[in-house]
Amino acid sequence: MKRHQIIYDTDPGVDDAMALLFLAAHPDVALRGVTTVFGNGTLATTTRNALHLTEHFAAGTPVFAGAAGPLAGTPRPPVSWIHGDDAMGDIAARQPPSRQVETRPAHRFIIDAVRAEPGTIALIAVGPLTNLARALHEAPDIAGLVKAVYVMGGAFGFHGMGGNVTPCAEANILCDPDAADRVFGAGWPVTLIGLDVTQRTLMMQEDLAHLRDAAGAAGRFIWDATRIYQHFHQRSAGFAGIYVHDSSAVACCVAPELYTVRRGPVRVVCEGLAIGQTIQKPLASPVPAPAWDDRPPQDVCVDVDVAGFLALYRRVLVGNRRHAVD
Amino acid sequence: MKRHQIIYDTDPGVDDAMALLFLAAHPDVALRGVTTVFGNGTLATTTRNALHLTEHFAAGTPVFAGAAGPLAGTPRPPVSWIHGDDAMGDIAARQPPSRQVETRPAHRFIIDAVRAEPGTIALIAVGPLTNLARALHEAPDIAGLVKAVYVMGGAFGFHGMGGNVTPCAEANILCDPDAADRVFGAGWPVTLIGLDVTQRTLMMQEDLAHLRDAAGAAGRFIWDATRIYQHFHQRSAGFAGIYVHDSSAVACCVAPELYTVRRGPVRVVCEGLAIGQTIQKPLASPVPAPAWDDRPPQDVCVDVDVAGFLALYRRVLVGNRRHAVD
Repeated sequence: MKRHQIIYDTDPGVDDAMALLFLAAHPDVALRGVTTVFGNGTLATTTRNALHLTEHFAAGTPVFAGAAGPLAGTPRPPVSWIHGDDAMGDIAARQPPSRQVETRPAHRFIIDAVRAEPGTIALIAVGPLTNLARALHEAPDIAGLVKAVYVMGGAFGFHGMGGNVTPCAEANILCDPDAADRVFGAGWPVTLIGLDVTQRTLMMQEDLAHLRDAAGAAGRFIWDATRIYQHFHQRSAGFAGIYVHDSSAVACCVAPELYTVRRGPVRVVCEGLAIGQTIQKPLASPVPAPAWDDRPPQDVCVDVDVAGFLALYRRVLVGNRRHAVD
Repeated sequence: MKRHQIIYDTDPGVDDAMALLFLAAHPDVALRGVTTVFGNGTLATTTRNALHLTEHFAAGTPVFAGAAGPLAGTPRPPVSWIHGDDAMGDIAARQPPSRQVETRPAHRFIIDAVRAEPGTIALIAVGPLTNLARALHEAPDIAGLVKAVYVMGGAFGFHGMGGNVTPCAEANILCDPDAADRVFGAGWPVTLIGLDVTQRTLMMQEDLAHLRDAAGAAGRFIWDATRIYQHFHQRSAGFAGIYVHDSSAVACCVAPELYTVRRGPVRVVCEGLAIGQTIQKPLASPVPAPAWDDRPPQDVCVDVDVAGFLALYRRVLVGNRRHAVD
């Protein structure tokens, strides 16, 4: 059995797609299922994109549709100027997927898969955490059965990183802060891969061009899908490349040595000015904090070996191809 | 006229006392008045301490009593295990002050002094910001007449610095978050000197011992007053020394080159889980944030030249003394 048995919970999304291709190409990963959630697009859009991606790059991987909106309230409107109208850089619409979504809802698949193989399955969640919260609500026992949970989400101020939607809130968490607060409060081992590290992980245009030229169909897809996404980064952050958000969660799972973590319980602000903010109480803190102190400690990534990440991603995508150029 | 005309708003407090001695000894500073506020002790305690300190180390400086509690709600109880029962390391009570407090309330003195000399007076505020908020409320015009406002307060997550009372809130801000939100939202130039820099500025026991031996009565006072305070740091943070909070605000005023700042509007969370947290929207952020965008940008200190600070403090306290040993 491969070392990493993964359920990938996702709202593709350009960088979600890059992470899915990373998972699909990694020799030590068995991608057991893809569960979809609203976020970078509507649930219909993200599910369609997941079907398209698995059809072309992860043949045989089942896709399960999940939540169309947050636990409470209405979903935030998707931001088409970041991921394109189709949430896939405006390239997916050319080819309708021939695959069908599974009948079980996403959270039910998570529950069944985790119960079937205790201690085996890791969840990598890179969208709003609604599916995970639903699964926990319906089956609290899965917290003790999951191997690990990797979440792309949050911002803790390290390296000056605030939020990317508000000055304190990161997009995935803000889409469903109630779900995130429940997921971080559960007794399973969560690692948060937030903007503190993902916005330090820049993949530049030349890196993307290298993938285009050396990583076959996957590389060409990544290049095409990232054109609008790169343009967004150029305008908003002023560099010719992209932040690597979701693939960082995959890297943290398969190569944890690339990341430095801080341990301590994490809360999410669910209302008011700071809604969507993630706040950790470091284990080393001597101050009592009742809202944190009864919660399990989780790991928050605070630093990353960027060169190591980029080399890993390139190696996995390009590595075994005969026409690799490096 | 001396270069820095200062009103010092304070809740002494051990580190407040160190900052007052720093101000009193600095050759370019004219200490125009001390205004007191609740915080490290009750208003009665902090005012008594201010009288004691000015009597011995800043002769002739008038002391004005200010707010005994926050704009809304009741004051948090003083924390005697940090600053001692007398908020001065349990040494002040030995010598009752012979001076009297002025009759004008603190906020009225601030208004009068600022109006009398437009563009001249800088405020250095190292306690809860209630007096400044009261002054602004009664005389909004002073925002355009103050030279600058330096606030020891807040925590923005740089270098992993969360709060020191809750995981996200710093003590001065948490004591009166409403006042702080008003002060940071006013059209005067505020520089926040928060835990991001003050908790990187460690004065070790040997530094304090040097002051004791080389800085005369002031140095001996600092040594005596910091014994309980150092013990608190030893227990809570595990080092034989103290964080230099309030003197950092003085240093930022007289030696701004020691500090790196980030510019952008600042809000304070006034309720809920994150109450007391300070959140800046960096000016470089491209994301709309209505709760920030109509507010003036302020400066938040994000880094400090610690060696430069320590040398400055030592130079000012020891510098001109004939028995200096360095």
